[in-house]
Amino acid sequence: MQRNGIAFSNLYLGLVHYPVCDSEGRVICSAVTNLDIHDTGRCASTFAIPAAYIINPLDSQRELVRRIIVHWTKGAGARRNPYRKEALERVRMKATLLDAIREITDRHHRPVMTVATDARRRDGMITFSMLRRLVCNRQQPFLLLFGTAWGLAQEVLEQSDLLLAPIPGVSDYNHLSVRSAMAIVLDRLTGNRYTGGR
Amino acid sequence: MQRNGIAFSNLYLGLVHYPVCDSEGRVICSAVTNLDIHDTGRCASTFAIPAAYIINPLDSQRELVRRIIVHWTKGAGARRNPYRKEALERVRMKATLLDAIREITDRHHRPVMTVATDARRRDGMITFSMLRRLVCNRQQPFLLLFGTAWGLAQEVLEQSDLLLAPIPGVSDYNHLSVRSAMAIVLDRLTGNRYTGGR
Repeated sequence: MQRNGIAFSNLYLGLVHYPVCDSEGRVICSAVTNLDIHDTGRCASTFAIPAAYIINPLDSQRELVRRIIVHWTKGAGARRNPYRKEALERVRMKATLLDAIREITDRHHRPVMTVATDARRRDGMITFSMLRRLVCNRQQPFLLLFGTAWGLAQEVLEQSDLLLAPIPGVSDYNHLSVRSAMAIVLDRLTGNRYTGGR
Repeated sequence: MQRNGIAFSNLYLGLVHYPVCDSEGRVICSAVTNLDIHDTGRCASTFAIPAAYIINPLDSQRELVRRIIVHWTKGAGARRNPYRKEALERVRMKATLLDAIREITDRHHRPVMTVATDARRRDGMITFSMLRRLVCNRQQPFLLLFGTAWGLAQEVLEQSDLLLAPIPGVSDYNHLSVRSAMAIVLDRLTGNRYTGGR
């Protein structure tokens, strides 16, 4: 595997299921999907992200995620597929964003900088290269937030320390899946685009 | 939506379910998943890819995909969610790679250049920037092939005109999901990384 990118030990992921929006802009709690858990874990492993948080306040949802993680990291799945095991070992289940922030803070002993992502352009959004430079140069941890359903709720966007520019596509269509968006963002932030691997 | 990328009217996607490999390297036919169809369509719409082919020889699988496409492009799904409609309108179901190639050839009246992707480094792989330049400068159509399961079978890799370098991660882990890989590849090929959107 050609290693061209930068491994950030201070960059974390959060896949948020609440609070997010539905198609009408109403705040909802979305359901966790099995593929999201695996794709998130595989992205985290590929880009050496120390931990990826699945955030959902419902007990039943958290129990579901917990079972999936246990199956692939300690159970039959772990024996069958070591790559899934490695991927799922980076996935953590939290009820709230605050719980994820607390865990990261405890680990780094520094305040977490939250970076919200959104498909729509808004004032004050920083570019990928600016964020990359921040994560490279700062000791503090950064938590990249991705919203499921129709995106992070307004309150999350307003309370986040930073907002990351949307992924520029080549059309007006800006409804990339959260799985696709997460992969692209990580590649843009960590990947070295100036070598042969580009 | 910030438009920074290049719209290639001669770049196509193929999501291959046969022939692909299982974890032991044996040639298998993998099953189509609903999320793959949607993510593929959404990627195609975001990056203005004219068509994305789901390739699977099994009648039952093709019927399943056909129903999903019809539901979201002509049925109840189309009325409920115009973004899904737009995305699925770019998705085409084909039994074989050859069928996809034929359709593209008929449309462009030029031979198709197939470009296989793989997670492992091999001799002769071209870089992203080389492929981008080719697609920009040539009139002929290009078909980017992504393998499900454990990747494209050896015969597809050997018969493809070109092989694209793997996505460089930052670790030895190279088991990104095909959904993630497809999104990253398209962003790398079409996206303009030298503007504010970067």
